Amino acid sequence: MSSKLEAFPLQLKLMNGDNYKSISDKLAYGGYVTQSLDTSCLKNLCREREGFINVDPLQTGGKLYTESKVALQSWGDGYSVCDFCGGRLDQIKNPPIYDFVYTILPKFLEVDVTRVTNGAREGIDTVMHSMCSPGDTVVIDKNAHYTTYVALERNHLNVQEVLNSGYPEFRIDPEKYAAAIEEVKKNTGKLPTLTLLTYPDGAYGNIVDAKRVAEISHQYGVPFLVNAAYGIGRMPISVRELGCDFVVGSGHKSMSACGPIGVLGLKKEHEEKILRKSKFFKVKEVELLGCTSRGASLITLMASFPYVAERVKNWPEEVRKARWFSGEIENLGLKQLGEKPHNHDLMFVESPKFFEISQTHPKRGYFLHSDLKERGIVGIKPGLTKNFKMSTFMLKKEDLKKVVDAFKEILSKYGA
Amino acid sequence: MSSKLEAFPLQLKLMNGDNYKSISDKLAYGGYVTQSLDTSCLKNLCREREGFINVDPLQTGGKLYTESKVALQSWGDGYSVCDFCGGRLDQIKNPPIYDFVYTILPKFLEVDVTRVTNGAREGIDTVMHSMCSPGDTVVIDKNAHYTTYVALERNHLNVQEVLNSGYPEFRIDPEKYAAAIEEVKKNTGKLPTLTLLTYPDGAYGNIVDAKRVAEISHQYGVPFLVNAAYGIGRMPISVRELGCDFVVGSGHKSMSACGPIGVLGLKKEHEEKILRKSKFFKVKEVELLGCTSRGASLITLMASFPYVAERVKNWPEEVRKARWFSGEIENLGLKQLGEKPHNHDLMFVESPKFFEISQTHPKRGYFLHSDLKERGIVGIKPGLTKNFKMSTFMLKKEDLKKVVDAFKEILSKYGA
Repeated sequence: MSSKLEAFPLQLKLMNGDNYKSISDKLAYGGYVTQSLDTSCLKNLCREREGFINVDPLQTGGKLYTESKVALQSWGDGYSVCDFCGGRLDQIKNPPIYDFVYTILPKFLEVDVTRVTNGAREGIDTVMHSMCSPGDTVVIDKNAHYTTYVALERNHLNVQEVLNSGYPEFRIDPEKYAAAIEEVKKNTGKLPTLTLLTYPDGAYGNIVDAKRVAEISHQYGVPFLVNAAYGIGRMPISVRELGCDFVVGSGHKSMSACGPIGVLGLKKEHEEKILRKSKFFKVKEVELLGCTSRGASLITLMASFPYVAERVKNWPEEVRKARWFSGEIENLGLKQLGEKPHNHDLMFVESPKFFEISQTHPKRGYFLHSDLKERGIVGIKPGLTKNFKMSTFMLKKEDLKKVVDAFKEILSKYGA
Repeated sequence: MSSKLEAFPLQLKLMNGDNYKSISDKLAYGGYVTQSLDTSCLKNLCREREGFINVDPLQTGGKLYTESKVALQSWGDGYSVCDFCGGRLDQIKNPPIYDFVYTILPKFLEVDVTRVTNGAREGIDTVMHSMCSPGDTVVIDKNAHYTTYVALERNHLNVQEVLNSGYPEFRIDPEKYAAAIEEVKKNTGKLPTLTLLTYPDGAYGNIVDAKRVAEISHQYGVPFLVNAAYGIGRMPISVRELGCDFVVGSGHKSMSACGPIGVLGLKKEHEEKILRKSKFFKVKEVELLGCTSRGASLITLMASFPYVAERVKNWPEEVRKARWFSGEIENLGLKQLGEKPHNHDLMFVESPKFFEISQTHPKRGYFLHSDLKERGIVGIKPGLTKNFKMSTFMLKKEDLKKVVDAFKEILSKYGA
């Protein structure tokens, strides 16, 4: 330690023998011997998948536009959006976060109030945490994303599932929400405190009549949350039309934003409960811990937004493309599960032929990922062959043709 | 509506009069008339503050390195880090998130277990939500960041404050944690379920003897959380040395990462409680809602990390610079509040002379921000003159000299 001290001769008097007088002194006078760390794996973090056709449903709606890439670069520094903050993220005028949160986003979602969140799952957690008490029950669709279940657990809530119709379409019948609500009432003596629908769901891309679920929920006086993580930014979503109380969306999944970020929309009547203010700091919203997505993720959401608002108008074309693709792969002997005709770009594919090949292939289940990658295609989970999820969203028809051709070639290569 | 239908003549049979058979059909066949939105304010989101000397404490530790800017660009798309995900963020091998979370970060913080979070505040919420039950009391320092209070409210917890010494140093005496714990025991009949210290605090940049707070907390068997949002990434932080149970840090504030992102460190003995798994999805961690910062924010944290790990070794130099700066502005008649000699780059400045000028200046309190900006300096909150926070972290001495000279010039310009 003495050699370190020599560098600070004037401070010797602060030392107590070999020990520093305090932690502050130890810090200030170099008493910490920081171990050396091997950080070589963090150098040159290259993304291998650039330039590939990516059919991962998680990714097709999250690609940045040129303009958002430029914005990302100039707002990349930590808390850059807070340059002109007066105390709350959503009130920042420069960059125009206030306009985005208070005018543009509410109009886009046709909803009274919006906020940005750290993601769709965090939005679900926010709604459950505000609207429900531990021990309450929430009615959800069986096709709900795993984060719905995890958010229920985090909030100590019980679950009542509305089952799907099973193989091959896995449809959710909105009318069954009534029976599920009755079941909760019978079993617990009280109504559920929330209903939730995944719209569309993230497994099959099925679109349930959310409007009917809203009507049923409201007949019982139960507020209704729509998880539109695969909806908002891909297809038109109108809270006014659906009649739901809350909607959550995902910036990184479906709104071409750099993760993590999401959006939350709510009816005015729930504002006081969800966006209650801190008793200690009057402007801060408790449920959002003051501010949420405080960085370039928000800037990319905003920079991409003009394009996102425009692309949802093109939804009928996206559906047509998905249906065409579904037909093409079915001609090859693959099977598209979920609703038919299909209503969304996200689809679940069953492919017994690929599974058969994997049984004798030296790479086992990984052959499909590998053979597709050779053909410039990624996004199907490595190891999967029997069934897998994929998406056609925002992919050019010529690229989707390449995917069909790749499937065809791979099947023929192995004589299947 | 008829003109829209004509575009899809084959589908007319699906329609029921003027109404679509279902929401899916309405979506698929263009039944939604999306309103036009004025999104012009979202075009060309330029960051005005590029190229300025930025002394905002929120910002000085959040600037990206060249390497992280490059990484940001290639990983900007939504869920890019999930290309090779097998089901959980922290287990991803490519990019090397697993190595970062399970080897590098625990070594850096000298702690058993780490995770990435959406930010320091979310880490505090996570610890409180797992360790405390509604109605419990938490002992915190009076200098705690506002998010500590908000997280307490979100978790329905009561607060017992350890007061500071008041003007001008606002010191927190670690010994007072004992009295605060006793007070809680006396008033509620039970011990607090958590103690928390802000290390350093975000108002004055004071550094309290966290080790002593740990000893006291543990004498009572109370787990202890250190909020090091302004610590980790700036100065050496060792959980082993401090003896705390939990530590949280901020990627965007102090680790040169694009926001939002944070880190959480915890002792092995608390792993089961904090990182409990879902009963529905075995690999998912309930408290983190499965995954947290799932995007380029994590990549920038990792890409900057080799530089961040290196820079904390330079902490004694940062302290020397802060003290030099403090001395220089005091020579001008400004006063540095908080500990003296100062132990951190974050400082609270009292400046009655600037306040005096503002009383008669046509721009009122905004003159200071305006006059500094003319001199290439930003980061002091617009409107403030009487007192303000600033930081000297990572700023070159020549730039800090410019700040001192600017203060001097402004004072002299107005004859103060």
